Amino acid sequence: MIDVYSWPTPNGHKVHIMLEECGLSYRAIPIDIGAGDQFTPEFLAISPNNKIPAIVDADGPDGKPIALFESGAILVYLASKAGQFLGQTDREKYQCLQWLMFQVGGFGPMLGQAHHFRIYAPEKIDYAYDRYTNEAKRLYNVLEKQLSHHAYLAGESYTIADIASFPWARSAANQGIDWNDYPHTKRWFDQINQRAAVQKALKVLADHRKPLTDAKAKDILFGQSQYAKK
Amino acid sequence: MIDVYSWPTPNGHKVHIMLEECGLSYRAIPIDIGAGDQFTPEFLAISPNNKIPAIVDADGPDGKPIALFESGAILVYLASKAGQFLGQTDREKYQCLQWLMFQVGGFGPMLGQAHHFRIYAPEKIDYAYDRYTNEAKRLYNVLEKQLSHHAYLAGESYTIADIASFPWARSAANQGIDWNDYPHTKRWFDQINQRAAVQKALKVLADHRKPLTDAKAKDILFGQSQYAKK
Repeated sequence: MIDVYSWPTPNGHKVHIMLEECGLSYRAIPIDIGAGDQFTPEFLAISPNNKIPAIVDADGPDGKPIALFESGAILVYLASKAGQFLGQTDREKYQCLQWLMFQVGGFGPMLGQAHHFRIYAPEKIDYAYDRYTNEAKRLYNVLEKQLSHHAYLAGESYTIADIASFPWARSAANQGIDWNDYPHTKRWFDQINQRAAVQKALKVLADHRKPLTDAKAKDILFGQSQYAKK
Repeated sequence: MIDVYSWPTPNGHKVHIMLEECGLSYRAIPIDIGAGDQFTPEFLAISPNNKIPAIVDADGPDGKPIALFESGAILVYLASKAGQFLGQTDREKYQCLQWLMFQVGGFGPMLGQAHHFRIYAPEKIDYAYDRYTNEAKRLYNVLEKQLSHHAYLAGESYTIADIASFPWARSAANQGIDWNDYPHTKRWFDQINQRAAVQKALKVLADHRKPLTDAKAKDILFGQSQYAKK
């Protein structure tokens, strides 16, 4: 049994999708990041960066429990455990890993900044709004070029690189992206979105999330440094 | 022989350090990101995200050449090739991987934003300046807690998680970090900084880099969307 400490955000969805795709037994435990659950000592003990998702697998690689944080690391762990979605050969594995890292290092953090300055920031700051909207377009252009030559990010097979990137692309409109400009990426998105495991995973913890309207939740999410005690 | 297409930036240093630590034969080929070298068709063919570093290893996993981009993926590839700096057991490997992902997804992109809004942005924007300075402090607090209990990020051994994070910590002052607040992290930093392979690696391509003063270089670096043609 795998316990996944999570919340229905893009990084949470990644791991829910992977667990469903692999058919692994799991239990989703809500960590309400708008209520500050990510700062409890119990959660920090398994996720020291105070971010969801984190997992505890009772049956780790040596038969003992293992705790892991960072969605990208969890995806690689689960892919290795299940023997799926990481490519068939070493060459395919590294090609998958480079596109996974592209998501973890760019098509994730930079789209997160686009969300912040386009939607959540208390005032509109033109420079930052444009900076991250332009970067979002640049990143989608990278996907578009790759997906105009290949069915999936790492080549012709569906891998954890796709599973990692898809949940971020669900918010394309919030990132200033017009799907008409990215037809190959839209084809890829629709294909993944139609998978039964993906649709099932997107419902995990979904009824826990409320619209981000109250000031306290925003303060917890965007003023984290005061909550993350030294 | 491994060709590394690179530049003396934190992400470039990571790979130079790893190559030196592993004693692998390599050739560093400068990609002047201030002059726009990252947008040539030749470079984009191996690094479609127009970022350094990228490598071409003539002796790939199947004996044929392989090209890889994304410094995090390159580190995992080189660690596997050399059989070093990725932990001894599967458990250690995943603990290393989660801290590597912490660098790739946070202690990298967010410190990059701190550099941008603290140093390079054309005007001081208080909200963004504070946002990324606070996030830098939060990230260093995460390191500090981990390094108060362990010699290195992933435990008691030096791994690619340290190799990935160290070059970003070289610019701590530019991120608003006072080392006096992070004594365990400073001890870790000094230890790594004293390694002969690290000192040798930091000199790779170093004489190619000029101070970022001219307007054209800034325009290329910070207005990339116009250069990254669709």
